[in-house]
Amino acid sequence: MSGIAEVARLAGVSKSTASRALGATGYVSEDTRRRVHDAAASIGYVPSTSAVSLATGRTQNVGVVMPYVNRWFFAEVLEGIQQSLLEQGLDLTLYDAKPGSDGRHRIFEDFLARKRFDGLIAVGLEPDHQEIDRLVTIGRPIVSVVGSGDATTVVEIDDDYVARRATEHLIALGHREIAFLGGGTTTHWAQVDRRRLNGYLSAMEGAGLAEHVVHIFSEVTLPGGYASAVDALGDSRARPTAIVATCDEVAIGAIIAARRLGVQVPSDLSVIGIDDHEFADMFALTTLRQSPREQGRVAVDLLLAHLDDPSLATRTVRMQAQLVVRNSTAALDPRSSAVAIDARRHSPR
Amino acid sequence: MSGIAEVARLAGVSKSTASRALGATGYVSEDTRRRVHDAAASIGYVPSTSAVSLATGRTQNVGVVMPYVNRWFFAEVLEGIQQSLLEQGLDLTLYDAKPGSDGRHRIFEDFLARKRFDGLIAVGLEPDHQEIDRLVTIGRPIVSVVGSGDATTVVEIDDDYVARRATEHLIALGHREIAFLGGGTTTHWAQVDRRRLNGYLSAMEGAGLAEHVVHIFSEVTLPGGYASAVDALGDSRARPTAIVATCDEVAIGAIIAARRLGVQVPSDLSVIGIDDHEFADMFALTTLRQSPREQGRVAVDLLLAHLDDPSLATRTVRMQAQLVVRNSTAALDPRSSAVAIDARRHSPR
Repeated sequence: MSGIAEVARLAGVSKSTASRALGATGYVSEDTRRRVHDAAASIGYVPSTSAVSLATGRTQNVGVVMPYVNRWFFAEVLEGIQQSLLEQGLDLTLYDAKPGSDGRHRIFEDFLARKRFDGLIAVGLEPDHQEIDRLVTIGRPIVSVVGSGDATTVVEIDDDYVARRATEHLIALGHREIAFLGGGTTTHWAQVDRRRLNGYLSAMEGAGLAEHVVHIFSEVTLPGGYASAVDALGDSRARPTAIVATCDEVAIGAIIAARRLGVQVPSDLSVIGIDDHEFADMFALTTLRQSPREQGRVAVDLLLAHLDDPSLATRTVRMQAQLVVRNSTAALDPRSSAVAIDARRHSPR
Repeated sequence: MSGIAEVARLAGVSKSTASRALGATGYVSEDTRRRVHDAAASIGYVPSTSAVSLATGRTQNVGVVMPYVNRWFFAEVLEGIQQSLLEQGLDLTLYDAKPGSDGRHRIFEDFLARKRFDGLIAVGLEPDHQEIDRLVTIGRPIVSVVGSGDATTVVEIDDDYVARRATEHLIALGHREIAFLGGGTTTHWAQVDRRRLNGYLSAMEGAGLAEHVVHIFSEVTLPGGYASAVDALGDSRARPTAIVATCDEVAIGAIIAARRLGVQVPSDLSVIGIDDHEFADMFALTTLRQSPREQGRVAVDLLLAHLDDPSLATRTVRMQAQLVVRNSTAALDPRSSAVAIDARRHSPR
């Protein structure tokens, strides 16, 4: 056991906390600092400057790169990261890298190259090959929340499984005419959305419902869900009895559209989302709950582990998502089923 | 004219751009850098290190303190600040200071004291006296977006005027039974909310409708607007014919509640908000449009001006807000008016 690990064990704290307590900087409580110093003294441990610097970071600053800050998922992850860094006494520098923007180019070429951070957290970044090369050459630990591939440690939910689980919930309620709303044409969020579509397709195929697959393209926003649901529900002769939305914002947009069109949720239409968005409860939305805030916190923990031990191998941490049944899904009413199945023959594919 | 001002004039750029171009750091385009250097050479100007350092900043970093990042207004302001700083080649360090939290205390006591920024932008911070003292002793320029009072330069809309204008729009449409939804009991956003309530009250009094004032408390969120509108609209004998909501999220919550209760908008109920939130168009919401993103950009401009010239006096910059009439407000139907006026006698005050 290395010296610092022994000190940490004796003081009952993590290695990174012990390092911070022995360094001149970095936040730990007075009580912790005293316990760590006592533990170090008891085994005659003197920290090497470089070890402290590695663990506490030279800049005491973590860079966060994300394509949006004004969207629920991203803002929640940012809150989680921010709160966790604050507890660790670390600053947060924010880089807002919109896909395809000049600003994004400049962030990768200029800002990140300055390396004014000890490590990076990339949230939903989906970098292209050139950008991945830039990230790797920076030579700082990187943790991704969602979708940055193999080059970094990743925190995410199992998007394929989650969408499959959502679809199976509707199938178990007797639905067959189940449409998927998502898979917009925007490049952003493309990987997540594709995985969720794939989960829906597997569940439908697994239940022998391959012929009943209907994929309705939707922008991955609340107004996007509204617009695509108006299309999907407009023709009463060719109406699905249930909708799997690629996320809660799309699901809520669909519920609002259904209400406007006089389609009753859940008696005429079941809707399930993915997220447990802050509005989910208000719309009685059945959903697969994830906690982006928790993902942000876990990303910080993983980044600190990589700062502690630069030789740590990258890995993928899968967070749980849990089915939360509210009132937007219900067992299929046999009458609406008959209508829908009959109507499907006239439905354009 | 000082040397740097003359250089800026000759190169056709701002003083701060000229300073950045002459400094070793700070982003300017190659073309601009060349023009500024040519201009400096033409008049034999050599920048003093301290002048460049003042204008470009020692840290090239701006701190942003806000109580939330996961709310529309704050996220939009943050986007505006981020984009503008990016164009200026400056980093952004984010401090998320929830009212009353331990984290907020630590930000004021530890993080800000480190002064790892050239200047601060405080968004909707509403600091208490002790916090204001801390901010002032930091000795860095500060610009506030909304509500931090006299100690700093402030960017904001005229909240009193905006709410008055919204109320007058409804009065001009013939409404008298106009309720105000807002003024929640949370300490956050209290100043803005009070000013808006005040604007509503002035408009009602100005139109001789003081006796018709109904103030319904609402949390300043979409679910808050929903809950308070359910209360306000639940009793059909004592129903307002129009609602001024303290912001669009509350207004949209009210529209969703009205739909659920079978109250038609706008034929039974007119609703007006303040913001022009990204969902406003989808709900056909009449509103007073402000641009928090633009407020963020203006805050950066003002901060750079203060960095350029530390002797600059603080000031308040009032941004315009414009009435956007959509389909959630309409002229009063004389029948509903009769019902409402009659019912008001039974309404609890």
